[in-house]
Amino acid sequence: MTEASTAPNTEPLGPDELRGVDLYWRAANYLSVGQIYLLDNPLLWEPLRPEHIKPRLLGHWGTTPGLSFVYSHLSRQVKLRDLDMIWIVGPGHGGPAAVATAWLDGTFTETYPDVPQDVEGMRRLFKQFSFPGGVPSHVAPEVPGSIHEGGELGYALSHAYGAAMDNPDLIVAAVVGDGEAETGPLAGSWLANRFADPARDGAVLPILHLNGYKIANPAVLARIPEGDLVKMLEGYGYRPYIVSGDDPEAMHQLMAATLDTVLGEIAAIRRQAREEGATGPVRWPMIVLRTPKGWTGPSLVDGEQVEGTWRSHQVPLTAVRDNPEHLRLLENWLRSYGPEELFDVAGTPNPRTTALVPDGPRRISANPHANGGLLLKDLTLPDYRRHAVDVPAPAVRSVGATGVLGGFLRDVMRANPTTFRIMGPDETASNRLGAVFDVTDRAWSLDRLPTDDHLAPDGRVMEVLSEHLCQGWLEGYLLTGRHGLFNSYEAFVHIVDSMFNQHAKWLKITRGLPWRRPIASLNYLLSSHVWRQDHNGFSHQDPGFLDHVVNKKPEIIRVYLPPDANTLLHTADRCLRMRDTVNVIVAGKQPALTYLTMEQAVAHCTRGAGIWEWASTDAGTEPDVVLACAGDVPTLETLAAARLLRHHLPELKVRVVNVVDLMRLVPVEEHPHGLIESDFDTLFTADKPIIFAFHGYPWLIHRLTYRRNGHDNLHVRGYKEEGSTTTPFDMVLRNDLDRFHLVIDVIDRIPGLAVRAAHLRQRMLAERLRCHEYAREHGEDPADISDWTWSS
Amino acid sequence: MTEASTAPNTEPLGPDELRGVDLYWRAANYLSVGQIYLLDNPLLWEPLRPEHIKPRLLGHWGTTPGLSFVYSHLSRQVKLRDLDMIWIVGPGHGGPAAVATAWLDGTFTETYPDVPQDVEGMRRLFKQFSFPGGVPSHVAPEVPGSIHEGGELGYALSHAYGAAMDNPDLIVAAVVGDGEAETGPLAGSWLANRFADPARDGAVLPILHLNGYKIANPAVLARIPEGDLVKMLEGYGYRPYIVSGDDPEAMHQLMAATLDTVLGEIAAIRRQAREEGATGPVRWPMIVLRTPKGWTGPSLVDGEQVEGTWRSHQVPLTAVRDNPEHLRLLENWLRSYGPEELFDVAGTPNPRTTALVPDGPRRISANPHANGGLLLKDLTLPDYRRHAVDVPAPAVRSVGATGVLGGFLRDVMRANPTTFRIMGPDETASNRLGAVFDVTDRAWSLDRLPTDDHLAPDGRVMEVLSEHLCQGWLEGYLLTGRHGLFNSYEAFVHIVDSMFNQHAKWLKITRGLPWRRPIASLNYLLSSHVWRQDHNGFSHQDPGFLDHVVNKKPEIIRVYLPPDANTLLHTADRCLRMRDTVNVIVAGKQPALTYLTMEQAVAHCTRGAGIWEWASTDAGTEPDVVLACAGDVPTLETLAAARLLRHHLPELKVRVVNVVDLMRLVPVEEHPHGLIESDFDTLFTADKPIIFAFHGYPWLIHRLTYRRNGHDNLHVRGYKEEGSTTTPFDMVLRNDLDRFHLVIDVIDRIPGLAVRAAHLRQRMLAERLRCHEYAREHGEDPADISDWTWSS
Repeated sequence: MTEASTAPNTEPLGPDELRGVDLYWRAANYLSVGQIYLLDNPLLWEPLRPEHIKPRLLGHWGTTPGLSFVYSHLSRQVKLRDLDMIWIVGPGHGGPAAVATAWLDGTFTETYPDVPQDVEGMRRLFKQFSFPGGVPSHVAPEVPGSIHEGGELGYALSHAYGAAMDNPDLIVAAVVGDGEAETGPLAGSWLANRFADPARDGAVLPILHLNGYKIANPAVLARIPEGDLVKMLEGYGYRPYIVSGDDPEAMHQLMAATLDTVLGEIAAIRRQAREEGATGPVRWPMIVLRTPKGWTGPSLVDGEQVEGTWRSHQVPLTAVRDNPEHLRLLENWLRSYGPEELFDVAGTPNPRTTALVPDGPRRISANPHANGGLLLKDLTLPDYRRHAVDVPAPAVRSVGATGVLGGFLRDVMRANPTTFRIMGPDETASNRLGAVFDVTDRAWSLDRLPTDDHLAPDGRVMEVLSEHLCQGWLEGYLLTGRHGLFNSYEAFVHIVDSMFNQHAKWLKITRGLPWRRPIASLNYLLSSHVWRQDHNGFSHQDPGFLDHVVNKKPEIIRVYLPPDANTLLHTADRCLRMRDTVNVIVAGKQPALTYLTMEQAVAHCTRGAGIWEWASTDAGTEPDVVLACAGDVPTLETLAAARLLRHHLPELKVRVVNVVDLMRLVPVEEHPHGLIESDFDTLFTADKPIIFAFHGYPWLIHRLTYRRNGHDNLHVRGYKEEGSTTTPFDMVLRNDLDRFHLVIDVIDRIPGLAVRAAHLRQRMLAERLRCHEYAREHGEDPADISDWTWSS
Repeated sequence: MTEASTAPNTEPLGPDELRGVDLYWRAANYLSVGQIYLLDNPLLWEPLRPEHIKPRLLGHWGTTPGLSFVYSHLSRQVKLRDLDMIWIVGPGHGGPAAVATAWLDGTFTETYPDVPQDVEGMRRLFKQFSFPGGVPSHVAPEVPGSIHEGGELGYALSHAYGAAMDNPDLIVAAVVGDGEAETGPLAGSWLANRFADPARDGAVLPILHLNGYKIANPAVLARIPEGDLVKMLEGYGYRPYIVSGDDPEAMHQLMAATLDTVLGEIAAIRRQAREEGATGPVRWPMIVLRTPKGWTGPSLVDGEQVEGTWRSHQVPLTAVRDNPEHLRLLENWLRSYGPEELFDVAGTPNPRTTALVPDGPRRISANPHANGGLLLKDLTLPDYRRHAVDVPAPAVRSVGATGVLGGFLRDVMRANPTTFRIMGPDETASNRLGAVFDVTDRAWSLDRLPTDDHLAPDGRVMEVLSEHLCQGWLEGYLLTGRHGLFNSYEAFVHIVDSMFNQHAKWLKITRGLPWRRPIASLNYLLSSHVWRQDHNGFSHQDPGFLDHVVNKKPEIIRVYLPPDANTLLHTADRCLRMRDTVNVIVAGKQPALTYLTMEQAVAHCTRGAGIWEWASTDAGTEPDVVLACAGDVPTLETLAAARLLRHHLPELKVRVVNVVDLMRLVPVEEHPHGLIESDFDTLFTADKPIIFAFHGYPWLIHRLTYRRNGHDNLHVRGYKEEGSTTTPFDMVLRNDLDRFHLVIDVIDRIPGLAVRAAHLRQRMLAERLRCHEYAREHGEDPADISDWTWSS
């Protein structure tokens, strides 16, 4: 019925090898149980007493022995075959295994010298686990050898495939838990294999770890008929090998034999692709590992089955301090691993225990790919100024900003043929970045047809209709020391809100870990933004990703709203040079007015926010009103409003301020890019009305400026959840962000002007009505709106 | 190799039936092309001229003919078999098909009488599509017969399975686009079949529509070998039937025969489960429909292949107004459907065109399940007061709030055995709602083992480790007129940020459509919140869902932070009675102090925010300082701070204000729950320092109150992205939300107090250090902190 395979039924491990892998595994299990339970007496040199036990028993045993089993066997293979390998621990709370195995192979101690490989180090290792000041129960940035936080589930495979890209010699073993396998993002990332190039990319070895249960429920993939499981995995394009059982010795032989087989297949696939020039789809091997949950832990506790059930998810024995029987069971459990055989009298792992450990950086926990900053090289950045658009005068010529950026990105791609990729959900061309296809293609390892457009196995543009996979790929790519850009639809980038959270939190923690070297920043380009939704409706209009982003630590996040093509070029160049931040750039793809020459753009972006004198009428004096703007469409409307005011109220002193770097608005005490108080007041005044036209939700500007002197005079227009399928100008009309309403806002905010400008106010209202009705009748904006320039 | 099947090779359609289904399909295609292109001359009564063409050509042809093909055949089967059926249009921009088919069967005209079934109606139908004031190019709430917005992709199957629950006679045909199939959420929802009960639930008929391309790329599932595709679907647990081709007549026969087969299988599965008592896993049928993208559209345009390629994704002929050849091709294309045969001289569909249309509410577009408010019945709500916990005095006894709620939810579940469900990612028990398992189980249609806990095919608690699937199920359940609750981990509910967006936007639009009847509110219970992360680290700490939620239209959203068990009970009861809103309740699951008797809780929650006199020392006069709080942990810290102030600074007049309904903070002009200005000032004062201890990010309180008189005196403490694996009190310490810091804030904010209370300030700092060091050493909080009560 199926092609599912088990490895040849041999016993590849000789007695010494079998003993070696079992010792390492038992030692890791011992250290894992110790982490969950022991505050002291780490080597059981005396009988276990309640005071040796942690006051709060926190941690997760269930998945841990299976993970340590995997690590032991992978380490053996690394040493045997001199492999370059990292692993990714998908299962949520497998922290004890990652910590234990890294301590055993010496990496933990090299990273944290205060946790030596002796009894005192072991005591500290145990205490710090799930303990204030220590490491969580899930795999976290603090654990060497990891690029993957085991908290929020779903991203093990996408991280793995991202890490493997452009690392032809790397093997990424990705353990996927059977809980994680139920998540959408994980389910959708199996097919990442269809984008992997065996000639250029490293190999991902998925290990689907079925231990049967989640927190309280069975896992679906562990319970469906095995025939269905195998078909599903084959359907995804893999060749699954089953490793199933609970007898340690038999499982060691089976796992060793299976790894021999799958690593042989991977080597053969590489050889065929690289030496024999084979092309076409590849069937990558993978492993299904079926072991009991809480394997080797207590079987029966208080008369209930624990091993092999959901009851072993966290702490199998819960009352160890108070219940002597639990204490006895714990001691028996710990002693069952034979600590006296595993460690010497000093508490150091015996040489036989660590015989399988590879040398130095070959150790999986020490592999530099899992600390990508070690490998990171600056991008070779061509001069973005060469892509500058000619701006003979402000606001008279139109060009699509992202189209211009596309040219620069093409040059970046050409100059960095192995360290830069672009990810996006099938929108690279739609977002006008198509120039990159002059030098590369979309990655695609399936069959190609003549009607396809720019597909190739070695393409460097990763397009799949899954924001989760795009983000996961890019994270994996960055975390292993490379560079990239994710371009997406503004409204739908919320799909990865939570992934952004996790990455930003990872960066915050790693910034406090000197041994973790800085990695390239994660760059978002949000186009197809809220203000241009010609055939899309209300559901496609959401600028709230900015609100989401600014909740994270200020040192991590940057938000840029370049108003035109040249400012976008400068911004992109800047973002591609940054480290350990998340940068969000919002830019429209439609033709739009240009304002600044390249030279002016550089100066303006460097300031981050500045007065546009050419659009202002305050002539360097104190203005009557400040028109501030951030974002391309709000800038256009603000300038049109300034032009109307100049014409109709020439005596009014209007200052136009444009903000590119949104974090400039925040006090410098709160964000490294924040303006100092006096600079803010110099730009915005401390007491004059400020009419702020903003790309996003208006209250975000209030949230950023509430400590500013001028805040009480600040009046913000932005997107207020009004929209539909309509013309560009009708969209701003519906949200009162249009030029006419901005003029009305000025009139209403300047004392005494309401009477003097009553006629103008009426006329603005009439203009609004005219434009709205024109759009409803003709399906487009009046020409004087759509063709507006500063000189019209 | 596989069990993939095609239907028996018969030709079930006689000549009249074949003609009938083809006429309906051709008419829908004609109407779809008309929507994309025509402003006038809808029936081609005169030769097509440029002025008949819309000025902006917006819309999506690619998926449309396939969708209309499906609808035509489903309608025929509904009539033939008297089925109760709705359909879900997954493909992103299939709007033209949904509009066209609904107009043809009369539903559109019944919904919008100004769009009659005649030539003038047709003209309006065409104009309003992708036009200001009309409907978007994706299926939107404005389209009758839909519960599913075709904008953001990924939720077609989860919505379908949610709709089918507890609707035993319903069939939900769910069309999944091959683009959508690449998304994580869709990939993860195939396995929803493993939770469906053939005895109690309706049937979902997935139709995977492969037309080969997305916007610019091939679709992965359309390009993998068919053997892999079939295995994948079989692995998911389905029996797939392939309907593939491009010849209309052959495809009509094949689709009809296949539907005969799969509908027969569904009937048999139901019969076996309901009449013969069959139990155990079921293999549900599904259809793989493979048709050319842009089927029946222009084949070659400007020498390029369009039909069957990505070029037909949107508008196949792009220059119709300017290019006479494009105009000619368009006219030929439209005439190829034979409008004179489809419609009579008035423009009304001919009787033969609509011969397959079922009667009245049997029409798929008119089925009341797709307008769930029509079917909605109030929940039978037992008296929540019976679950009240005894509160002999404020802040002296502890109880876990969600555990108490569990008892109430059990009674709700018992009283509403077919209209209420609870969804959650395997956390119902962990969140202490386990009492519901007294009256129901977790839904599970796979095999069960003795070690399983409360699984049954007819369980009403839907647990799967996919927040996407939980949310999609609940949305589908609510949109078809039922009730429910989604309980989740606070940090990870961000996973469904974007789904929340889409649902909230759907509700906003439907509130403006009188024919869409109100549906039950979507209720979130967020537990395992930011302040209790005993074994979890920084990655599990994120209260930002509240920030995300409040960006949506005020009339849609409600946020509740009940401080204790009785207030939670009242809040839950209130939320279960609401309509057309999204309600977010945040409540801890750990034992926590109780403050209010049931009677007091009702009064307090009804006010939404109020002074707690028993904790205050202002005795009804103007206070020196206001200690405000929202959330269970912040309330505890605020009370402890109030107690410290009472003891150490007895002369200080302190007012304690607790906020349950967060939207009370907003001006009434901005939210229906907002306090009027004078009421806000009465509570918070207009000029006294307010120290606000908040559950979430502190700036959210600023964003809600920046228009308030007292805002300049407001000082907010909340989560500021500081955390790790640590004790409960160390978590608040790290974020300066602890009682000692709140006392310091009071001292620092009251003029003149700094000197007088210098010693107290020092002591508070020392207490902070003591607690922090105790936690680092002992792994738990000092007893005077963890056991603190108002009387201690």
